[in-house]
Amino acid sequence: MSLIPLRDDLVPFLKPYLPANKVQGPDSKPFVTLTYAQSLDSRISKGKGLRTVISHLETKTMTHFLRYHHDGILIGVGTALADDPGLNCKWCPTGETADWQCSPRPIILDPHCKWQYRGSKMHELCTQKQGKPPVIVVKKRPAQIAVIRDVTYLEAPLNVDGNIDWLPLLELLQSEFQLDSIMVEGGAVVINELLSRPDVVDSLIVTIGAKYLGKQGVEVSPPAGEVELDGISWWKGLQDAVMAATPRT
Amino acid sequence: MSLIPLRDDLVPFLKPYLPANKVQGPDSKPFVTLTYAQSLDSRISKGKGLRTVISHLETKTMTHFLRYHHDGILIGVGTALADDPGLNCKWCPTGETADWQCSPRPIILDPHCKWQYRGSKMHELCTQKQGKPPVIVVKKRPAQIAVIRDVTYLEAPLNVDGNIDWLPLLELLQSEFQLDSIMVEGGAVVINELLSRPDVVDSLIVTIGAKYLGKQGVEVSPPAGEVELDGISWWKGLQDAVMAATPRT
Repeated sequence: MSLIPLRDDLVPFLKPYLPANKVQGPDSKPFVTLTYAQSLDSRISKGKGLRTVISHLETKTMTHFLRYHHDGILIGVGTALADDPGLNCKWCPTGETADWQCSPRPIILDPHCKWQYRGSKMHELCTQKQGKPPVIVVKKRPAQIAVIRDVTYLEAPLNVDGNIDWLPLLELLQSEFQLDSIMVEGGAVVINELLSRPDVVDSLIVTIGAKYLGKQGVEVSPPAGEVELDGISWWKGLQDAVMAATPRT
Repeated sequence: MSLIPLRDDLVPFLKPYLPANKVQGPDSKPFVTLTYAQSLDSRISKGKGLRTVISHLETKTMTHFLRYHHDGILIGVGTALADDPGLNCKWCPTGETADWQCSPRPIILDPHCKWQYRGSKMHELCTQKQGKPPVIVVKKRPAQIAVIRDVTYLEAPLNVDGNIDWLPLLELLQSEFQLDSIMVEGGAVVINELLSRPDVVDSLIVTIGAKYLGKQGVEVSPPAGEVELDGISWWKGLQDAVMAATPRT
């Protein structure tokens, strides 16, 4: 599906929240933007594994504008399996066909190697030179991998609980793959974890679609409790609204 | 607490959703506006029974503007017990002290007579001629009631499941108390029930405060599943956004 033009007022609205606005030191972690679309009742899908349309064309273009401004785009394995997303960037400043080199590098958090790159939308886009090959973050590199050109496995640093340790992982993504900015697009497990990590997240950009998905939907809400935000601003479209902010440290 | 002036752009934004815009026939139910404030993660409080500030001064005045435009204001007993709300209207078009006669008549859904009017904020306001006396909707009128001037009990029509039957109740509120428009302010039980009742709700006005309250908070989400909306429009303030719409029938 092609994109409609980016709404003019989205550019100044988003500007303060883009990576370019924060100077990163040489040893600092990549700039991280956490972004997702939710319903009024903070659901990101109708049910586990169900791909659900929440936002509209007016904010779809914004997502590609954000992808253009980031070096990497990270999702959890649940989203990779449910949505089979392309994760490439279809927007470019000139309005012409986007150069695939402007696309962010996909990063899939797949600790137990459940996702198959072969045959995926990402594989197809990469083969057609319309997207970059992914970095797959695993707990342990699989012993036998059918050789697929360009796929890279990265063993994740783990914390004492055996879960992925965000800050060292981000530093690795910068040092190994030169990713100075990473956009996190979901799903619920990753979002809920990062909402309580102001030490990881630099910008938060939430699109709200004006509908309810209902109690059975997949919910976004920080398990650790209240999260306050700073530098809040809102954008409104015809169907959707967008809130941008900085998580309070 | 006194109110800040109403933001000018809220008036044209809200106008299409006010009762005056819908002609009600003589036998039709009152015009019903469902309105509440939620966090980004669709919580209306931090926890059951905990009064939680979500919206800011910029939208607090809007709530009183909406109260000015309705004959009745309805809440569930949980909200009455948790918040001890006044439910009167502090806004008036001239900007002077609001006449108490402009306040909506409070309606408390209290099927099992758990709420005490005596000593409540509503009682205090009514005694001071700053608010109207409530109608308390019960399943069965209590046998012994200490006489308190102006309190009225209304026995609710029940459906086959023994729960309050909304449409006949609304008709009774109109025929007995001449309430042509009713604003429903919460809490979660009432909101969740009415979100799936487009036959009851004429306008939906949701304020979103830019914060997260966390998984332990009291959630708003229709148990019956997806709810689509029509006639959507958004207003944005500095801290809060407001969505207004009509539930799709």
